[in-house]
Amino acid sequence: CQAAAQKFTGGIGSKLCGTFIFKHEILSFVSFSRLNEAILPHAIICYFNALLFFTDLLPALNGDAKTMNFLQEVVDIMLAYIVESFDRSTKVIDFHYPNELLQRNNWELSDEPETLDDILISCRATLKYAIKTAHPRYFNQLSTGLDMVGLAADWLTSTANTNMFTYEVAPVFVLLEYVTLKKMREIIGWQDGRGDGIFSPGGAISNMYAMLLARYKMFPEVKEKGMSSVPRLVAFTSEHIYVYMQFSALMTDYAFQSHFSIKKGAAALGIGTESVICIKADERGKMIPSDLERRIIEAKQKGYVPFFVSATAGTTVYGAFDPLMAIADICKKHDIWMHVDGAWGGSLLMSRKHRWKLNGVERANSMTWNPHKMMAVPLQCSALLVREEGLMQSCNQMQACYLFQQDKQYDLSYDTGDKALQCGRHVDIFKLWLMWRAKGTIGFEAQIDKCLELSEYLYNKIKDREGYEMVFDGKPQHTNVCFWYLPPGVRYLEDKVEKMKRLHKVAPVIKARMMEYGTTMVSYQPQGDKVNFFRMVISNPAATFEDIDFLIEEIERLGQDL
Amino acid sequence: CQAAAQKFTGGIGSKLCGTFIFKHEILSFVSFSRLNEAILPHAIICYFNALLFFTDLLPALNGDAKTMNFLQEVVDIMLAYIVESFDRSTKVIDFHYPNELLQRNNWELSDEPETLDDILISCRATLKYAIKTAHPRYFNQLSTGLDMVGLAADWLTSTANTNMFTYEVAPVFVLLEYVTLKKMREIIGWQDGRGDGIFSPGGAISNMYAMLLARYKMFPEVKEKGMSSVPRLVAFTSEHIYVYMQFSALMTDYAFQSHFSIKKGAAALGIGTESVICIKADERGKMIPSDLERRIIEAKQKGYVPFFVSATAGTTVYGAFDPLMAIADICKKHDIWMHVDGAWGGSLLMSRKHRWKLNGVERANSMTWNPHKMMAVPLQCSALLVREEGLMQSCNQMQACYLFQQDKQYDLSYDTGDKALQCGRHVDIFKLWLMWRAKGTIGFEAQIDKCLELSEYLYNKIKDREGYEMVFDGKPQHTNVCFWYLPPGVRYLEDKVEKMKRLHKVAPVIKARMMEYGTTMVSYQPQGDKVNFFRMVISNPAATFEDIDFLIEEIERLGQDL
Repeated sequence: CQAAAQKFTGGIGSKLCGTFIFKHEILSFVSFSRLNEAILPHAIICYFNALLFFTDLLPALNGDAKTMNFLQEVVDIMLAYIVESFDRSTKVIDFHYPNELLQRNNWELSDEPETLDDILISCRATLKYAIKTAHPRYFNQLSTGLDMVGLAADWLTSTANTNMFTYEVAPVFVLLEYVTLKKMREIIGWQDGRGDGIFSPGGAISNMYAMLLARYKMFPEVKEKGMSSVPRLVAFTSEHIYVYMQFSALMTDYAFQSHFSIKKGAAALGIGTESVICIKADERGKMIPSDLERRIIEAKQKGYVPFFVSATAGTTVYGAFDPLMAIADICKKHDIWMHVDGAWGGSLLMSRKHRWKLNGVERANSMTWNPHKMMAVPLQCSALLVREEGLMQSCNQMQACYLFQQDKQYDLSYDTGDKALQCGRHVDIFKLWLMWRAKGTIGFEAQIDKCLELSEYLYNKIKDREGYEMVFDGKPQHTNVCFWYLPPGVRYLEDKVEKMKRLHKVAPVIKARMMEYGTTMVSYQPQGDKVNFFRMVISNPAATFEDIDFLIEEIERLGQDL
Repeated sequence: CQAAAQKFTGGIGSKLCGTFIFKHEILSFVSFSRLNEAILPHAIICYFNALLFFTDLLPALNGDAKTMNFLQEVVDIMLAYIVESFDRSTKVIDFHYPNELLQRNNWELSDEPETLDDILISCRATLKYAIKTAHPRYFNQLSTGLDMVGLAADWLTSTANTNMFTYEVAPVFVLLEYVTLKKMREIIGWQDGRGDGIFSPGGAISNMYAMLLARYKMFPEVKEKGMSSVPRLVAFTSEHIYVYMQFSALMTDYAFQSHFSIKKGAAALGIGTESVICIKADERGKMIPSDLERRIIEAKQKGYVPFFVSATAGTTVYGAFDPLMAIADICKKHDIWMHVDGAWGGSLLMSRKHRWKLNGVERANSMTWNPHKMMAVPLQCSALLVREEGLMQSCNQMQACYLFQQDKQYDLSYDTGDKALQCGRHVDIFKLWLMWRAKGTIGFEAQIDKCLELSEYLYNKIKDREGYEMVFDGKPQHTNVCFWYLPPGVRYLEDKVEKMKRLHKVAPVIKARMMEYGTTMVSYQPQGDKVNFFRMVISNPAATFEDIDFLIEEIERLGQDL
């Protein structure tokens, strides 16, 4: 290493060169061996910060060195946490109930300042009790994993600390959003990547923005006059778009249907949840087009105006892809806005092997696509893509006062502040853009293909294994693998009612034990008349075949006595 | 330094101690002198990354050292940028037009991956063309400055990479949000800090959430049945809540009325912008209560239902505080939801000297308060506080499926996923919480008081100075100081129309020159019949009296020939 550096330094003295190398050695030394916590007395580490307060940091006069030192300490804490997160021998979570966690640290806010040393202690405590979302065995959510380039980009975004509304205050980020959205539209298949779009604070908001656009497109007067000026509007979506969340699996079987983003949007927009019509799904969770058309005709007969169909590309629980081509035909025939909620499944467009599952998406009017899910971009990163140009602006801008606009050389497509309900927007673009540069499209493709391969491996492993039952037949289309594990004590029960009652309690108990041991985390939920089942999803690029094997062994180890 | 460390190390060998000290010396060495860019050949710095790709980083096998090295390089780039940002001799911005900026770097996304060295180059380029929001002479927005503890907290938030919806996936952050919102409600003056709240993606969304709650409170059936089931609703707000934004000041006088968050909310919610009634403001920009009451009575006479009054605590341009006590009386009398939009001015509640400006806020039903503005918390950090408990949940949750809920020991107040339209939420709490710990309430108070002191200094300095005219009389209530600078060539013009026409062009040209030189940035806009004037705001804790002096000198230097 030192030799290599010397080769490059040429004429520069050895001291300088040695210094540089030394820095890297020390870094490895301190953070890898976690010496700063284990061997070196805490007092040394804190020496610089124990007597310092925030007032000693920049912009304080001569605050440079103290600031660098403080930030470097925080970085060292984070680097140690990162390395630990990827280490399979560490716990995914060190779980405690709220009241217990409240007592394990002082989290209160007071009038008086704390020393920087106390601040570092708070940083350590926060990470100690955090869930390690980067852990290769963390499968609990649709967003898992921690990408190192994405993380670096997010740190840099925080450092730039600006807002997305104009080119003036965020020149580079506005430009990168423009470049990236265009690329995403090309991938969808819109000619020359034309159209519009925006990064929004999550899939639910992206879906609501789409609904807002669809309504405005059909009845622009609604903006000024409200819903009372238009006939009764109805929207359609699959009955399968429920999102279930568990609140603390340690609570045994407490499940909760969290939201229904299309219904939430309809409630907010003054359309009303009763005007969202749920279309039947087949046994794989895909919307049945004939039922969609039947319900559209039915609504029209009642005098209602169908204005919005939200097809789902990748449902939360089953990972089902609605048949977009057939839905596009129906939307075209009845002149209805077609939206594709690809929050979870949209990223499959990056894969030449799997993108056929979204065939027809190019015919949609809008699409939600969350790179923070299947592309493992750090949270939050959700895009709404819109086919028609200019619509977002006219839908969301207020009476613009152009009185003073005399010079139009400036390309307004770079000013995004008026395209959405928000005025300022958080900078969510840089992490996606930088990751795309680091991986290339083929890198994202490989990452996605690998996750799907892992889920196929899991499916093949358990589909005929004793003690397992699949929730639906056939190979999953996304990485969602839904299954029951039946412990021996449940497996052979003959009373079907009793069997279901017992089975319903199995997944929650196993999950609770997973969290107690901290070995892995996977989600479970009931759906319709189906009792609690595991929903495995794989979006974590750190996961391997061995981790899948481990999960199955762990489920059996923790559940065999139930 | 070495001696001090030795004092603390006690028995530990001198090599170890030396190592520790050495690390800090190198840090200062590399980053302060910017040796890595200036003296050391770039080749060395890049040596480790030139042949590496993202696939060499974690979770790659043996990726630890390479990951640490890569992240440390990014940190070094950021640390150098931070030190530079606070240095008054550096430019606030290195401005280029979009087309020019597009050509200055390769920003395109391709199929193939880039090396980690290329990624570092992109990081440097991104910061090179970014606006230095931390710069002591950056006054352009309501959100300025860069707090070192807030930044550290945001880095840590990115590292934890989780979502806010349940305690299970974000135990610490959910707890800290709970603690902080309670503290904020106590400061508002709600008994025992009771009530509810959430951090949302910005002030416009917080205001919309408040409007949604007000409507639901009065007509809960709107959730299912939509706006057609309720009478015509009307909302009221001050005519002064316009937000003006300039798109590139280099474009001379192009101004733009960006948004009107209450109107935007009304458009989205299906209420319609025509149902937002603008109440007259006095010459200081404060809502006139008698006009409010008159318009409420008028609306009732027309058969409309007044449901929402949004009073503003700190308008964007004038920094005006509406008379909350008088407005509260009117809202009480007519049984209307009172919302206080304190996005900009809410933080004055932290100051014993200035909080009287919000007297009456404790009688509001809800309040928007953006710590990312006057408290200089990194973007984004906006809170909606709500007086009534439980309302957010019932307004926004969809038909909850409690079928399986058998165990209620778990405190549901820690599960926030169903309180808002969003399902997942970005973690915005940690930076505010950690800054609060570092500063204490008194630290925030001192920071806010200082900004107000600076603006009073500016006001006193220019109010009688030759060539200046104030846009409104009297000491500003917030840090907004609105003024015209009249260059000698305009100052003595007798033709009033010509004078206004010329004056209208002064601020844009001065601003354009500021950006060309990169010396400072301050915003300007027209308002009503008033031609372009400067709106100085101070939320940047790095600003000093000397920076105010500099601003005035700079305006005169750049504008004297106009």
